[in-house]
Amino acid sequence: MAPLTLALYQPDIPQNAGTMLRTCACLGVGAAIIGPSGFPVGDRDFRRAGMDYLDHVTIDRHASFAAFQDWRAARRRAGETRRLLLLSTHAAVSYLDCDYRDGDILLVGRESAGAPEEVHSAADLTLCIPMRQGLRSLNVAVAAAMAMGEALRQLRAA
Amino acid sequence: MAPLTLALYQPDIPQNAGTMLRTCACLGVGAAIIGPSGFPVGDRDFRRAGMDYLDHVTIDRHASFAAFQDWRAARRRAGETRRLLLLSTHAAVSYLDCDYRDGDILLVGRESAGAPEEVHSAADLTLCIPMRQGLRSLNVAVAAAMAMGEALRQLRAA
Repeated sequence: MAPLTLALYQPDIPQNAGTMLRTCACLGVGAAIIGPSGFPVGDRDFRRAGMDYLDHVTIDRHASFAAFQDWRAARRRAGETRRLLLLSTHAAVSYLDCDYRDGDILLVGRESAGAPEEVHSAADLTLCIPMRQGLRSLNVAVAAAMAMGEALRQLRAA
Repeated sequence: MAPLTLALYQPDIPQNAGTMLRTCACLGVGAAIIGPSGFPVGDRDFRRAGMDYLDHVTIDRHASFAAFQDWRAARRRAGETRRLLLLSTHAAVSYLDCDYRDGDILLVGRESAGAPEEVHSAADLTLCIPMRQGLRSLNVAVAAAMAMGEALRQLRAA
């Protein structure tokens, strides 16, 4: 089990998905894609952003959020705790104020629309990256990288 | 003076530059572009990645690295200390092991070729993002975001 996993909820921008998987490969973070995805795995922008790094990351694919939740339940029965930490611009808690634990899954929503209510309800914690007032959001690959960096910093210091 | 500045050395990929300036806007980080840049400010990919966030970031433009160094020398004479922290895959020191200070300038090189020797020599510190062995590099906007996140975490805790 990777100390940390990044899960992409129904990714819709191939370039961002490729960049996030490249980041996972470089940092040794596991990756999961919760479908349906908005593009085929052979998408040109996806492969260009992910480059050959895509060969260096293990990607768990889940057909739907329900299938992903079933997988988490099975892992729980096997004794693994895999918390679900949702990154959201609507969260009240900063990603810096979270105590990350081994096995945590960082979840990012769609670039265009975030994550639906069902996903918010299922999350153990919902975290934001503090931003200047009046600005909308960071690029999703940037937000994911900042959260992965902080989680790995804490897990390696533990 | 912003607590932190991100400087782009001769940016060559418009999309990454746009994403980095969007990140600066959202995080309240100052931005500098050290020319010559490989694309015009009206570039379509640059403006698409930066979106309207480009209106919310102050960008200091320097025609060359020499001009940037002259600007730093002038700031120094005015009593400001602006350390130059270069992000480089060749660095031995992790970005987590740096004590960031108010006024620090994080510098990223070109996506294609990093920064030349002249820039390495001028840096007060050279920092890397620790990666799995055998992998080459993170996307430059991802690396910059991780370093900005850590620097701001430290500066706000101080």
